[in-house]
Amino acid sequence: MSPTKEEISAWFRNLQLHICAELEAEDGKAKFVEDNWERPGGGGGHTRVIQHGNVFEKGGVNFSAVHGELSENMVKALGISSKEFFATGVSIVIHPINPFVPIIHMNVRYFELSDGTYWFGGGIDLTPHYVQEVDAKFFHSQLKNTCDKFDAAYFPKFKNWADDYFYIPHRKETRGVGGIFFDRLKEEGSKSKVEIWNFVQAVGETFAPTYRQIVSRNKNQEYSEANLQWRNLRRGRYVEFNLVYDKGTKFGLETDGRVESILMSLPENASWFYNFVPEPTGAEAQTLAHLVKGTDWISI
Amino acid sequence: MSPTKEEISAWFRNLQLHICAELEAEDGKAKFVEDNWERPGGGGGHTRVIQHGNVFEKGGVNFSAVHGELSENMVKALGISSKEFFATGVSIVIHPINPFVPIIHMNVRYFELSDGTYWFGGGIDLTPHYVQEVDAKFFHSQLKNTCDKFDAAYFPKFKNWADDYFYIPHRKETRGVGGIFFDRLKEEGSKSKVEIWNFVQAVGETFAPTYRQIVSRNKNQEYSEANLQWRNLRRGRYVEFNLVYDKGTKFGLETDGRVESILMSLPENASWFYNFVPEPTGAEAQTLAHLVKGTDWISI
Repeated sequence: MSPTKEEISAWFRNLQLHICAELEAEDGKAKFVEDNWERPGGGGGHTRVIQHGNVFEKGGVNFSAVHGELSENMVKALGISSKEFFATGVSIVIHPINPFVPIIHMNVRYFELSDGTYWFGGGIDLTPHYVQEVDAKFFHSQLKNTCDKFDAAYFPKFKNWADDYFYIPHRKETRGVGGIFFDRLKEEGSKSKVEIWNFVQAVGETFAPTYRQIVSRNKNQEYSEANLQWRNLRRGRYVEFNLVYDKGTKFGLETDGRVESILMSLPENASWFYNFVPEPTGAEAQTLAHLVKGTDWISI
Repeated sequence: MSPTKEEISAWFRNLQLHICAELEAEDGKAKFVEDNWERPGGGGGHTRVIQHGNVFEKGGVNFSAVHGELSENMVKALGISSKEFFATGVSIVIHPINPFVPIIHMNVRYFELSDGTYWFGGGIDLTPHYVQEVDAKFFHSQLKNTCDKFDAAYFPKFKNWADDYFYIPHRKETRGVGGIFFDRLKEEGSKSKVEIWNFVQAVGETFAPTYRQIVSRNKNQEYSEANLQWRNLRRGRYVEFNLVYDKGTKFGLETDGRVESILMSLPENASWFYNFVPEPTGAEAQTLAHLVKGTDWISI
């Protein structure tokens, strides 16, 4: 049976709580704090933030379910015919303390119009401060496994889409090692709405076990002051991507969303060193060499 | 006699060197380092950066003189008829170490098309981490003195323009205490090009003595770890303004400019604390209360 928007939204809220519990278990110290907010135009959300843990310096796992009328500009930008919308989803960004633990981002979302139009969207991508092939390979393999259960065409298509989306043109760098990105997914051909929904749910469920394994493998690695400086410089790139290019951030800021929930994606601190050029043979230069589109991480 | 583009450009280069010498004298330790760059489409610039001084943590004083063909998009965006352009200017952002010394920004620029169209633009604004009325009043008085020598209408008009331009809509905060901003200034009525040029030169010359006095008054103030945290949070707002709204930054990134020269405006480090709310009676809350448009700092 096709899921209703209420069912989708309730499942997302549950996913949020489940992921928070998993991350708390991995951290072993810090707990998420929840802020509830209402949107003047309709609906609201639960922002959950973890800070100053053993492992996680700052992270947010946001749930929202909002509805109302789109502006004329948005109707035009989205190329749709109806103004009454409903949107729900979970959005995550986690900034760890240890420079060898990657930043991670996930978003899964559902959008519906009063005329019956709907679509799903989402993505997961991994941003290591230091690219480690073993983690990138594991991460991409996990995503491929999830995708392949539904459609063999999904992973190659959504992996390329992520390469294009999580890209910083002015730096000529990918944000990290990519992942998957998809949008406007709806029933098509033999594929029903419930099948698409099952895929989106499977993506959401891939997050916690995948990230926990990567965190667990790296969280006790020793690091130096120089590693922290490099971590902060990479965080600066993350800030550049989110403030200059990220569509969700732009949409949120332009539609007067709750700023603290939108910008919880920014790290506690970030650095910009003028014209920083890493040692040519060091791990930093190796990381930069990996920040290109089109890498087949699974076969590496 | 009307200044030629070569004369304007040479004067700007000289202003850059003069301001650098003044800032080095105020710092007493760090020296500017110069990087020269060429623009593939024509022209180039000298980027001068000061780092890790006694007073200045990171600052850039950039000169550029570029020429070439504008893209069709730019021709449309600027509402002009000619594609061959020449642009020259000086652009400054200084991030001090001491939280009681304000960040400062100045830009003075000249733009010319092959069909003879030209205009001047520019602005100076002050961004204190802690707003101190004595500094804001002095800063605005200095700018008013300079403006009033040329046109009594300038200061009120350009002060309001700065209030509107140096504004962070999603925070509902001005970036700092403002200053002046102007654009598309050209001969008009009884005012000749040379008079406009003299005004722009006077703005440029106002920078060093004004900022030096503000720096000098505050650079030896003692500060705490909490003051540094607040400084970094305010720097985070500066990053938000520059990456989300600043027209020069957007133009530079979109036209594939030299990234390290464009983003030298970003501080060495910046922070984002989730939902930070300052003590209601502290200096931080007082600063927030001052970050509104329309304050008459001179009469305060």
